[in-house]
Amino acid sequence: MSGTSCDGVDAVVVCIRGGGLAMRTRLLAHTHNAYPARLRRRLLAAMCPSATTTGEIVALHAEVGRFFAHAGREAVNRRNGGRPPDLIGSHGQTIGHLPHLPAGVATLQIGEPAHIAAALGCPVVADFRQADVAVGGQGAPLVPWTDFVLFRHRRNSRALQNIGGIGNVTYLAAGGDAAEVIAFDTGPGNMVIDDLMRRVTNNRLSFDRDGRFAARGHVLEPVLARWLRHPFFARRPPKSAGREDFGRSFVERELPRLRAASSRAEDWVATATAFTTRSIADAYRRFLPRRHGRLAVDEIILCGGGAANITLRAVLANELPEIPIRSIDEYGIPVQAKESLSFAMLAAACVDGVPANLPQVTGAERPAILGKLCQPPTQG
Amino acid sequence: MSGTSCDGVDAVVVCIRGGGLAMRTRLLAHTHNAYPARLRRRLLAAMCPSATTTGEIVALHAEVGRFFAHAGREAVNRRNGGRPPDLIGSHGQTIGHLPHLPAGVATLQIGEPAHIAAALGCPVVADFRQADVAVGGQGAPLVPWTDFVLFRHRRNSRALQNIGGIGNVTYLAAGGDAAEVIAFDTGPGNMVIDDLMRRVTNNRLSFDRDGRFAARGHVLEPVLARWLRHPFFARRPPKSAGREDFGRSFVERELPRLRAASSRAEDWVATATAFTTRSIADAYRRFLPRRHGRLAVDEIILCGGGAANITLRAVLANELPEIPIRSIDEYGIPVQAKESLSFAMLAAACVDGVPANLPQVTGAERPAILGKLCQPPTQG
Repeated sequence: MSGTSCDGVDAVVVCIRGGGLAMRTRLLAHTHNAYPARLRRRLLAAMCPSATTTGEIVALHAEVGRFFAHAGREAVNRRNGGRPPDLIGSHGQTIGHLPHLPAGVATLQIGEPAHIAAALGCPVVADFRQADVAVGGQGAPLVPWTDFVLFRHRRNSRALQNIGGIGNVTYLAAGGDAAEVIAFDTGPGNMVIDDLMRRVTNNRLSFDRDGRFAARGHVLEPVLARWLRHPFFARRPPKSAGREDFGRSFVERELPRLRAASSRAEDWVATATAFTTRSIADAYRRFLPRRHGRLAVDEIILCGGGAANITLRAVLANELPEIPIRSIDEYGIPVQAKESLSFAMLAAACVDGVPANLPQVTGAERPAILGKLCQPPTQG
Repeated sequence: MSGTSCDGVDAVVVCIRGGGLAMRTRLLAHTHNAYPARLRRRLLAAMCPSATTTGEIVALHAEVGRFFAHAGREAVNRRNGGRPPDLIGSHGQTIGHLPHLPAGVATLQIGEPAHIAAALGCPVVADFRQADVAVGGQGAPLVPWTDFVLFRHRRNSRALQNIGGIGNVTYLAAGGDAAEVIAFDTGPGNMVIDDLMRRVTNNRLSFDRDGRFAARGHVLEPVLARWLRHPFFARRPPKSAGREDFGRSFVERELPRLRAASSRAEDWVATATAFTTRSIADAYRRFLPRRHGRLAVDEIILCGGGAANITLRAVLANELPEIPIRSIDEYGIPVQAKESLSFAMLAAACVDGVPANLPQVTGAERPAILGKLCQPPTQG
């Protein structure tokens, strides 16, 4: 898969035994293939709601599919000795997610899966979001079902906090079942931080490694307060955010305000970092259950690129001092592998005929079997 | 399905028994649902290589999918008493087909099939062209396999000539097998005629009913001769044409030439009609087999909207006087139902695991199972 940060394709090789909620996984390999610079530029330029041409979208759909095939082959060579796996799941690259059209949600993931099936010689399940959209859901988030399969716990209530381009949480109440899972986008993840880093370093750095930049800055509180009044935060779950909310156009609009408040880029990045952590903490306080007057969260498990941002993690711990924070690494799943692992599991659920959307999470009217199955070409 | 003319969605209900080359079909119902005017305008405006926005493509993908679902429901209500069919095949709406990119062919059909699966409660196979593209094919034409299943004959060599927006032929040699089928796009079908009709009648007429306009005109031979020098015609099959070749931009470029040659719109339409028939006859003479010094074609079976154009048929008969021309109606398949019937058959082939591309026709390196399968949502 490739996420909203659009930097490249993560792939995993995973052994899956059992099906449905009893599925068990063992991670065998993980690779990351950065998009070639030109392809990435074209993808960023085509991100919704950009002006583009139909020809460019058609071409990108094929090229991204071919690049995903390349990334899949690298992963398979790493661990499977080049033997085709039994099944591939491919999320593709989201280039637009429009939750508020008159006729309902519209979303588009590009990266033609037939290229993957042909290059690797095995069936591919792709395009997971559309089936949920078709039954009235937002098509996101989809990983909560896999979070439930992987992390549900009899005695501990857990919040899995993903910090990718966008931040999102999956809340698993102790001993709860799938219908009780709470999950929604908390708001910005790394998106605002990364965009600022690229601007202030003239594209030399594309993210704030270990949060070093933010650690040297001061939060510009009036700017942060203003940002937190974004209408997204008050909306009740289920809800999903995207580049439309916190992408380039957000940063472009807010840059003058940052400049007016401080001349130090470190302060801007510190403010963006606090924007992520504060919106996470606020979301927990607003929308997660309480027990004896306090948040019923025994543990926060961080995943996504932001889990490696030491400053971000420290600031979040400061926001929610009563809750231990761990990284998903500590549970044997490398941060970078988690999302891909989820889509491998969703592909398995599809061929097992197991619905994997959680209607209370996506807003769907009913369960849906996610994904489209394409067969590999025959030999000969 | 909806073709390159982009006027609306044809749907059939068909009973299929048997599988693969032994598949037998019985047509139960056929409907046509014109696109709402606004949706059609938006689709035409988005046709490759138009300038557009990513948001518009994302929105159209969903809206066209919902409209296909509506069209499918109408067809099912007509004949199946509203009971869901066992399977649906959906071609979608092509908005771009780019055969000559550096990395290979790229094509895009929009109209999200998950909406059809959700609305009708049955599995849907869609997006038939990508699997062929992924093995090096042009992704077109795909109906020749179904033509072979429906029309192969022990003693007669048949040319099935489809005249949709684009013209294409499937040649079935007497007693030949699937590997001997010859098929390719012959060039323009109704595309140039229809575009001219809309211009000269100020959008009052969108096609030349019964060829009445063309019948009153004279062919502008020097213009026609120039058009026939288009490099598409000399290229050897396999080959496919599209709006890129003979669409709006072709007509816009050629209008001044038509105006200079004659002031009569009837002459322009007569010339466009001869462009279609002459390019068909030329293609037969260039690329179909001969027997005893003459074309080995015992019968031409016309299908597509152009089959109803009396003038076009007469002019074609004049071009190829030795060959009887029939309409596919005479074989129990209404002209308007043929393409949709083909995609129903291709959907059945997909779930049967039967490859339905003909590599010698599409240029593919090997057989491929066409289409992606999406499951309907579960009840509940």
